[in-house]
Amino acid sequence: MGSNDANVPYRQSEQSTSVRVDDLLDRMNTAEKAGQLVGTWCGQLRHENDSEDAKAAIRDHHIGVAAPFGWAGALCTGIEETVETVNDLQRFAMEETDLGIPLLLNVDAVHGNAYVAGATVFPNALGTGATWDTATAETVAGITATEVRRMGAHQNYSPTCDVGRDPRWGRIFETFGESPRLCADLAAAKVRGYQSDGIDHGDSVIATAKHFPAYSEPERGEDASPVDVSAYKLRNTFLPGFEAALDAGVESVMPSYNSINGEPVHGSESFLSDLLRDDLGFEGHVVSDWNGVRHLADDHRTATDQRDGVRQSHAAGLDIASVGHVEHADHLVDLVETGEIDEERLDESVRRILRVKFEMGLFEDPFVDADAAHETLGSADHRQIAREAARDSMTLLKNDGLLPLDGDKDVFVGGPNADDIVHQLGGWSVPQSAGVPGDTVLDAIEDQSEGSVTYEQGATLNENRDIDAAVEKAAAADVAVLALGEGWYLHEFGPSAQAGVETGSWPTRSDLHLSDAQRDLVRRVHDTGTPVVGVLVTGRPLIVDWMAQNVPSILMAYYPGTEGGTAIAETLFGDNDPSGRLPVSIPRSMGDLPQHHDHLAHPTPIGDDEHPDSYDPLYPFGHGLSYTEFAVDDLRVRSDDIGPADDVDVTVTVSNTGDRRGTETVQVFATQETSSRVRPRRFLVGFERVDLDASESADVRLSIPVTNFGFHKPGEGHVIESGRYRVLVNDLESSFEIRPDEK
Amino acid sequence: MGSNDANVPYRQSEQSTSVRVDDLLDRMNTAEKAGQLVGTWCGQLRHENDSEDAKAAIRDHHIGVAAPFGWAGALCTGIEETVETVNDLQRFAMEETDLGIPLLLNVDAVHGNAYVAGATVFPNALGTGATWDTATAETVAGITATEVRRMGAHQNYSPTCDVGRDPRWGRIFETFGESPRLCADLAAAKVRGYQSDGIDHGDSVIATAKHFPAYSEPERGEDASPVDVSAYKLRNTFLPGFEAALDAGVESVMPSYNSINGEPVHGSESFLSDLLRDDLGFEGHVVSDWNGVRHLADDHRTATDQRDGVRQSHAAGLDIASVGHVEHADHLVDLVETGEIDEERLDESVRRILRVKFEMGLFEDPFVDADAAHETLGSADHRQIAREAARDSMTLLKNDGLLPLDGDKDVFVGGPNADDIVHQLGGWSVPQSAGVPGDTVLDAIEDQSEGSVTYEQGATLNENRDIDAAVEKAAAADVAVLALGEGWYLHEFGPSAQAGVETGSWPTRSDLHLSDAQRDLVRRVHDTGTPVVGVLVTGRPLIVDWMAQNVPSILMAYYPGTEGGTAIAETLFGDNDPSGRLPVSIPRSMGDLPQHHDHLAHPTPIGDDEHPDSYDPLYPFGHGLSYTEFAVDDLRVRSDDIGPADDVDVTVTVSNTGDRRGTETVQVFATQETSSRVRPRRFLVGFERVDLDASESADVRLSIPVTNFGFHKPGEGHVIESGRYRVLVNDLESSFEIRPDEK
Repeated sequence: MGSNDANVPYRQSEQSTSVRVDDLLDRMNTAEKAGQLVGTWCGQLRHENDSEDAKAAIRDHHIGVAAPFGWAGALCTGIEETVETVNDLQRFAMEETDLGIPLLLNVDAVHGNAYVAGATVFPNALGTGATWDTATAETVAGITATEVRRMGAHQNYSPTCDVGRDPRWGRIFETFGESPRLCADLAAAKVRGYQSDGIDHGDSVIATAKHFPAYSEPERGEDASPVDVSAYKLRNTFLPGFEAALDAGVESVMPSYNSINGEPVHGSESFLSDLLRDDLGFEGHVVSDWNGVRHLADDHRTATDQRDGVRQSHAAGLDIASVGHVEHADHLVDLVETGEIDEERLDESVRRILRVKFEMGLFEDPFVDADAAHETLGSADHRQIAREAARDSMTLLKNDGLLPLDGDKDVFVGGPNADDIVHQLGGWSVPQSAGVPGDTVLDAIEDQSEGSVTYEQGATLNENRDIDAAVEKAAAADVAVLALGEGWYLHEFGPSAQAGVETGSWPTRSDLHLSDAQRDLVRRVHDTGTPVVGVLVTGRPLIVDWMAQNVPSILMAYYPGTEGGTAIAETLFGDNDPSGRLPVSIPRSMGDLPQHHDHLAHPTPIGDDEHPDSYDPLYPFGHGLSYTEFAVDDLRVRSDDIGPADDVDVTVTVSNTGDRRGTETVQVFATQETSSRVRPRRFLVGFERVDLDASESADVRLSIPVTNFGFHKPGEGHVIESGRYRVLVNDLESSFEIRPDEK
Repeated sequence: MGSNDANVPYRQSEQSTSVRVDDLLDRMNTAEKAGQLVGTWCGQLRHENDSEDAKAAIRDHHIGVAAPFGWAGALCTGIEETVETVNDLQRFAMEETDLGIPLLLNVDAVHGNAYVAGATVFPNALGTGATWDTATAETVAGITATEVRRMGAHQNYSPTCDVGRDPRWGRIFETFGESPRLCADLAAAKVRGYQSDGIDHGDSVIATAKHFPAYSEPERGEDASPVDVSAYKLRNTFLPGFEAALDAGVESVMPSYNSINGEPVHGSESFLSDLLRDDLGFEGHVVSDWNGVRHLADDHRTATDQRDGVRQSHAAGLDIASVGHVEHADHLVDLVETGEIDEERLDESVRRILRVKFEMGLFEDPFVDADAAHETLGSADHRQIAREAARDSMTLLKNDGLLPLDGDKDVFVGGPNADDIVHQLGGWSVPQSAGVPGDTVLDAIEDQSEGSVTYEQGATLNENRDIDAAVEKAAAADVAVLALGEGWYLHEFGPSAQAGVETGSWPTRSDLHLSDAQRDLVRRVHDTGTPVVGVLVTGRPLIVDWMAQNVPSILMAYYPGTEGGTAIAETLFGDNDPSGRLPVSIPRSMGDLPQHHDHLAHPTPIGDDEHPDSYDPLYPFGHGLSYTEFAVDDLRVRSDDIGPADDVDVTVTVSNTGDRRGTETVQVFATQETSSRVRPRRFLVGFERVDLDASESADVRLSIPVTNFGFHKPGEGHVIESGRYRVLVNDLESSFEIRPDEK
């Protein structure tokens, strides 16, 4: 085992990464190379692998990537067992193989390292979108990176750069909402947070921009169903998030499961090479989504068999097959040996993975320590940040004066999400409450209330659970807080065993109303005359049309994480001003979809007054009430001599006209007067949160890059057309001219 | 007026058309040319024009195209007044202008010459789709052409080649349904019927393939809202109907109102020139949809003003601006004079319009005769064909043995569509019953029943109209026939004045269920215990989920036209076997949209059993019951040596196993086993109706061009990939191999 000799160049940390990569690559045979591009797992997936299976794969097939924890089917969720497994696997890879290459371990830590019981769980992405706060998103990602690294993993399959365009889709809660601008800015913030200033920090992880390039408007809202999209929409709606992540230096990109325009992305050279590398200039590694390669033959039917799927994916530009396991590795070896895949193509991928392993220092020390993990995961500091993020996401949809509650009111608490920490985390988290820190909504209300608190669930997610008892208790209270909504789920609201609801029963992609049981609960409690606060713990923007008509207050809480119960209670009692603003439109009915604030202008052939409005949501994008009142006045746009490389200075005066401190988010939209392509009626170009004391005023000035006003014109690239633009803030409007580019 | 001299070449019918065109063009100044490319109208549009206004436009602006009747806002609907107006205008154009060029008159005769009271009105396109009968569609179009020509018009804005992909869309009834194959075959049949073997017949009209290239899946189902589509879907879903129309020699093409991928089609060179002319080889004239040019500046905001819109549209490839009126003509003159539009571009368009005027013999005789029109319009022969077409469209969705009715049963008739001939015609017809031939459903039931017939409307389209009285009468009857559904409307269910329902009230694009009033009527009549037959007179596939669960029989009648009441009654009483088959899927809920039989294959990341089916309609595409039973057996596919230029012979044995004569439609679907792009789970490749006596069997053999199994692959054109295909008929399945093309 000469290559285990510490004197070989690749083992010397003082050598440059490129020298180390070249040296190691030179020593590798085809099977060793192929193995570096393939992941295995410990847990329940296609079949259950334990760590001995993973070791066998490492020994016999040179597997270089693994997922021993941090995902839905993993065997380990506790800190001790996970640390032990991780160290055991790394020790095996480094000591029991010829080349001693450490493993790259990846996790699904999309809102904190949430598949480890004990980790801090932050609001899911839709709630993060509601904060309109890039600084906190970056901080949160940094904490997540630290909690992930303390457990020994190196790559995080996050951030989601998808733009949430169909609320039926079971993964919309993983997006930052419907605005390409908001998604782009938050995705970039998360990349910066995960990767710090580079992955050579012990507190950073490889970020993974997913799911490239267009996953989030699947046909009929069905997960992984086809997307059909023009270059115009692809570039202007779906790509901005990815472009922002690339600009922020994201190390990895994951293709989407679906086919786009008939091409499954996992096998598409035009998406993974022409677009991603040649056009967008991506230089990191492309990692498959789980089973994404298998789908080519099994589901898309564009590959004749698994071997052909492996060939297509690597020819297309895939570097790593996440859970390809030994079959993938064996096919890859065979394909290289028969010449169907070029060895240089293989080497190119291997270089990418070796580079990050060297840069992250894994050859020096891939091991972790349980005590350090215990100290870090779920630390008070981390949970404090999670609480702030959850507070800032709280979006008050409606308030007829009921909120904030006086602390001494007698409160009835009910609903399926009142006392369920797992529902409060949402998917991509441990599906059991054991070991999870944080309070439920009920716990937190009990803590914070000075009056009496009664509780009766009344309904599960979709079944009556003694509504009569709930009604009786509610009738006796001063106010009824009903925590409603959705539970823990992945993809199409499953897996049913973990989600606790049968496939096909609510929540379903067909219905965004609350379940019948929950609607019954609300109506019957409302009928008692006790005023109802509806709290929506939910992954999707639910159609709460009856509540909007009938109950005095509705608070949208998304999946707020471990600290969400506390943040909800603080908001209800007025200790937190609800400063979240909807990152997604809440539609009025299923038949109105899609409802987006940035829909394109279009004619109405028999007259405007014969068309109901194109955009008529129940609650619009950007909506959210505060406990104080704000006036926004005096919109000023620096209007002279704005050229295509300038910033547009937009200033408004924001005044807190109420009697308590609060937070407003200035949302700056634009529209182009005449354009060469049809453009949105309005689109977001900038935003900024501002905290103001009662009676305080401030000028809020945004320097908005003029590129934010432009668009991608197929064949020409990103263009900023000269001419007149209008800037819109609330009901204020101003316009300015962009002068022609003289170049 | 030298050019009025009969000796000039263009006036001599013995000269070739090209000589005549060249001669006339040489004599025209720019204004005279421009005027030939612009239409005016008599009626209520942007402002009301009467025939004197039209004459002024002809005299002062050389307008060469007009719509004096045959559309929704026209002043004339009666035969005499229309003939007089038409002749008056033609006489004016030929005698009071220098060049004496006759007018080209156009109409919206999409299902018969239906804007003339007295004309035969055939089923609308969706009902035509339900017949799966190209021969009858061709005959019907031929009759329509005759009825149009007898009234003096020359161009018909039909057929619709759009594929109906969103049932919310208010124009889906103008389509032949959701299958590109069915639409293509029926569109080609209608072109053949309209144009006979050429437009130089006195019984032919210019057909207009519309709305090119993709109008029919507008965002959120809103009329004229944007379509975003890849080249892959554009070519494989939306273009086949247009390609078939072009193959059949269609003379004219109309662009769609909407923007596609950000490009408004009326101003798009890439769609109107690159795609339509260069790629598809179209040589006829492109005629704008009404106001389509005006929308560029007013709505799409891609033109700075109307003049710029005129420039863009002609630069893009537009020939005729349908109702551009004098403003359009003036702009066009100015644009040519300033050199912004090339005079050659103008000449090219003028040649196209002059050619058809010469070919149709208009310079010789553009006049019509009221007596001849009276004899032809609504003749017994024509109405007999209309009755057959209506019969063949009747689609029995459900029948728990109630139908056919015994003639001596006591029948209660109710519902908003039981006694309303205008609702029965549907849009693109006269909106008043005066002069319209044909029986309502009630009339026809009264005629055909041997028992007692009682009637009470019970509900209008969306309002209770004494449901109690209806319930009382229904309770006393043996059976209740409720004629439900939608009324007369255009576009977004308007104009409200003519449609008789307020904008925003049902029918709306958001809701495909019956209105509350109609649902109440059905439920309450059902509650009497009298068995209910629901008859759906409707433009759209309504979600009749409650009826599907509760009432014994549902008959889908579409908008069946003047003879539809008779055909419905014949079907109810068993004199007609319902042989219609759904040309469109009826969804189960609004949240399930889109529901198409030919959706693409796709993966289900957490397992098939965690995804509700992608296609799970209330009633599927192709569904329809008969009064007899059919067995379809012994699927045979000629399986040896099928090359890319061959036909695929598919044979099945169809047996009428019931006790009465009936009609079955053999529907042949295919699927490709492995393809280079993701393809539909199944797609229609051929179909054939077969009439069989009780106990009769027949082999039905279809020779299906192998091209029907292929698809358009962007960059490569239409491809027929070698490999294995499966052929599916009902639950039968067979497969065959296409050998590689040796070229």
